[in-house]
Amino acid sequence: MRAITIAEAGGPEVLNWDEVPDPVPGEGEVLVEVVASAVNRADLLQRQGRYDPPPGASPYPGLECSGRIAALGPGVVGWSVGDEVCALLSGGGYAEQVAVPVGQLLPRPEGVSLVEAAALPEVACTVWSNLFMCAGLRPAETVLIHGGASGIGTMAIQLAKAVGATVAVTAGSRERLERCAELGADILVDHREQDFVEEVRRATGGAGADVILDIIGASYLDRNVRALAMNGRLVVIGLQGGAKAELNIGALLVKRGTVSATSLRGRPADEKAAIVAAVREHVWPLVAAGRVRVVVDRAVPMWDAGVGHSVLEEGGHVGKVLLTV
Amino acid sequence: MRAITIAEAGGPEVLNWDEVPDPVPGEGEVLVEVVASAVNRADLLQRQGRYDPPPGASPYPGLECSGRIAALGPGVVGWSVGDEVCALLSGGGYAEQVAVPVGQLLPRPEGVSLVEAAALPEVACTVWSNLFMCAGLRPAETVLIHGGASGIGTMAIQLAKAVGATVAVTAGSRERLERCAELGADILVDHREQDFVEEVRRATGGAGADVILDIIGASYLDRNVRALAMNGRLVVIGLQGGAKAELNIGALLVKRGTVSATSLRGRPADEKAAIVAAVREHVWPLVAAGRVRVVVDRAVPMWDAGVGHSVLEEGGHVGKVLLTV
Repeated sequence: MRAITIAEAGGPEVLNWDEVPDPVPGEGEVLVEVVASAVNRADLLQRQGRYDPPPGASPYPGLECSGRIAALGPGVVGWSVGDEVCALLSGGGYAEQVAVPVGQLLPRPEGVSLVEAAALPEVACTVWSNLFMCAGLRPAETVLIHGGASGIGTMAIQLAKAVGATVAVTAGSRERLERCAELGADILVDHREQDFVEEVRRATGGAGADVILDIIGASYLDRNVRALAMNGRLVVIGLQGGAKAELNIGALLVKRGTVSATSLRGRPADEKAAIVAAVREHVWPLVAAGRVRVVVDRAVPMWDAGVGHSVLEEGGHVGKVLLTV
Repeated sequence: MRAITIAEAGGPEVLNWDEVPDPVPGEGEVLVEVVASAVNRADLLQRQGRYDPPPGASPYPGLECSGRIAALGPGVVGWSVGDEVCALLSGGGYAEQVAVPVGQLLPRPEGVSLVEAAALPEVACTVWSNLFMCAGLRPAETVLIHGGASGIGTMAIQLAKAVGATVAVTAGSRERLERCAELGADILVDHREQDFVEEVRRATGGAGADVILDIIGASYLDRNVRALAMNGRLVVIGLQGGAKAELNIGALLVKRGTVSATSLRGRPADEKAAIVAAVREHVWPLVAAGRVRVVVDRAVPMWDAGVGHSVLEEGGHVGKVLLTV
């Protein structure tokens, strides 16, 4: 088969569409004939040599895909060759084929094309596991979502609205904030011109955000703690603004607050399977009912994956960038 | 009645046993004739002018007491004059009488004297709410308890062992560690001579602690994060080592870890009542069965409360320092 390989750490130009050995599905795995994958920020870090795949994962980038089951490994029940699926991957989605543990497979949701389905696994699993399983977001609470127009952000807005939360978002332009508003965001903060601490406090009568979903890390840590409400929960899932920063534990203590940091890729298979099962139970019906939309910025051919990486690096996109085989 | 008043911010000598107005129980409160109170570190901070009572709380120190109900305020059911009780307070325990919301009352547990019962509410509520309600400590997990010989520490060791956890403790002398071992602690770390990160890792086969209960704050933050296991939860309940420190969010993210900081005193009445109810349900039976012992360092007369404060400041105590009327 062909797959995107990384010649050496570097810019988008180091990605090559190469002939590589076919994967073989192991015990409890299926082989998926890939129709589409999607670009995640972790892929950019992997390309730059800053995020090695976890032990046992495919060396090729790609944390999600959609396609059809082409073969079943030993011990697989409940799935058939030809099934239209999408999958959460530990790597290897930028390829014509990938072996997937069945715990990370999802059926293509009703009402979504097989190509579009590649946009769902990573954002649905990331958002569900962090907003609901980790932070315990409840109806009538307020959630602040940084990067509201990103793939993660567009899913987080919709899921938080679906459970009845009030949604604040940050983004870097009026246009991107408008797209967030169309998806249901209630409080719009242009981070180039406004202070999100002040805006969130003002919009919540001084209370702050019960939950914050953050992709920035260090450079937002202090402001995030200040923006938290009493009993507030900050979940950091990205470190675009650095990894180390001063934490005001005293301020956190007065609020009885929590700072969590998580990643999906490094979780063991059983935790991934539990998240995928929860997504199938809670998110898939919302997608099928049209209450949660797949937000796709564009699709580019997989052999030209570097173009997709450039789109994320430039940062003007709204929603997911797909790579089609 | 008489109560301990704070003449001005300062050392133990600023505490005076003064005549003050009697408290009057409001709606949903009872008046308790105090038999004993106990010294908490927050009382020392209040005496130093560094921890004002929350709005509506008594101006006198004292976060817990035991005694007999002397009068019922309007709307109180389920309690009678003469009942032997202990109580979690927002302040005012260093006094002959105190008004207590019924949600913060507990019956004197079987097998514990009324004086000793004053040692229980603050530690039982603090430990239960943090180790179990906040950090979700589970059987077969490992918990690291800093200050294992303190009032909080001696309760935390016993409750963690009662649910089947492995318990690591830090303390500042061999003698204090021996007392922790008598209460059930499995892993003993002398923080003057040993590195707790290394000791906890070694004792857990490299895994680290699933839960850490910390009273130090800033100066332990980085080491606490390093000592955490995958999916580990650090709960900071004291800031003896400062309030601000660098957090390695990247290290936390790799572990999918959580840092919480809480205080009991500032919680609203409904949260306190929920904690007290959980303590009555889960901790009181263990105390009555003799599986959790009340650890009292000494009792001093309440009029001489400064002596009790000095004991905590010198730090050689094991368990609680009581103040008796």
